[in-house]
Amino acid sequence: MEKHKIGSRVHASTVKIWSLSNSQGLLPIHRVLLGHDGSMTSLLELISRCEVAIRTIKQVVVPCPSEAADLLAVDVGEPANEREIVIVRMTDDLPLLYALSYTPLSRLKHGFKADLMRADTPIGKIMQRHRIEARREILDVGYLESDRQLEVLLACPGPYLWRVYNIITRGKPLITVKECFSVAL
Amino acid sequence: MEKHKIGSRVHASTVKIWSLSNSQGLLPIHRVLLGHDGSMTSLLELISRCEVAIRTIKQVVVPCPSEAADLLAVDVGEPANEREIVIVRMTDDLPLLYALSYTPLSRLKHGFKADLMRADTPIGKIMQRHRIEARREILDVGYLESDRQLEVLLACPGPYLWRVYNIITRGKPLITVKECFSVAL
Repeated sequence: MEKHKIGSRVHASTVKIWSLSNSQGLLPIHRVLLGHDGSMTSLLELISRCEVAIRTIKQVVVPCPSEAADLLAVDVGEPANEREIVIVRMTDDLPLLYALSYTPLSRLKHGFKADLMRADTPIGKIMQRHRIEARREILDVGYLESDRQLEVLLACPGPYLWRVYNIITRGKPLITVKECFSVAL
Repeated sequence: MEKHKIGSRVHASTVKIWSLSNSQGLLPIHRVLLGHDGSMTSLLELISRCEVAIRTIKQVVVPCPSEAADLLAVDVGEPANEREIVIVRMTDDLPLLYALSYTPLSRLKHGFKADLMRADTPIGKIMQRHRIEARREILDVGYLESDRQLEVLLACPGPYLWRVYNIITRGKPLITVKECFSVAL
């Protein structure tokens, strides 16, 4: 049996997570939550051993702000769906994760758009339902000692971990997402 | 803030993993390894905090066996790439995961085919390199008390966990994969 070095290097976000892990003493499950490229909803259901639900804080069409427009490669001010949610455990409403996402309306197909606008379903589930083929690109990750808004939304004091990623379909970013969760998750 | 039940139900594989977790006392990281729908290579690098490499056991074009043909929805006997590998840690060669996969040659595009046939790169890395948009469908998962072949390949006694999944691109299964790893991972 012959061993081969992997051709393409380790993803930049993985290297950043290793470093964060060293400096902040993260657990394997934290590193996975920060760096995985699958469905976050699915991961939360596996970890918490129960179904999860969405609590919608805000769902509105806005002119795309410049930071999101950069990540999505659309013009600033283009109509985008802004969605702010907390994913909670079905059993006891315990908040697990806060997410803020932007989706340019121009990139949404009809069925997906209807599901997204109904505001009651996590993106991972909508993608499963529509059998959407995509790839997730982790753009940045970080550690946050404390944050008053997150302390209220997640009903849990810091520290928190966060990540920003794009979901890419047909070669273009469909959604850019920022997710935050407590290290106590 | 209003809470919504998620429209589509929990994935069948997730329910099976919850049940397996109860009966076998699995940890959160086991459930994630069994049920996530992202890149397994990426997950192993996040967990083990080092780059991983491939040790190729076997790489050969075979007539597709019936079980794999069923999962891939191709005719039995159609030429398929059979690949048997162990993913190991770069730093110390520690085996992390055994994988057996079948890919019908008819579904392979030229560049992807060349990378796959070189046998030195995990599928997740090849997909990242070619920016392939896909979805992974977990078909089955299970628990194995002991297995002499795995004990040698993984250099670790049982129990083991296994999963079978398809990687689907352009509406068709591109690869069907069986992965096995030790609960000591």
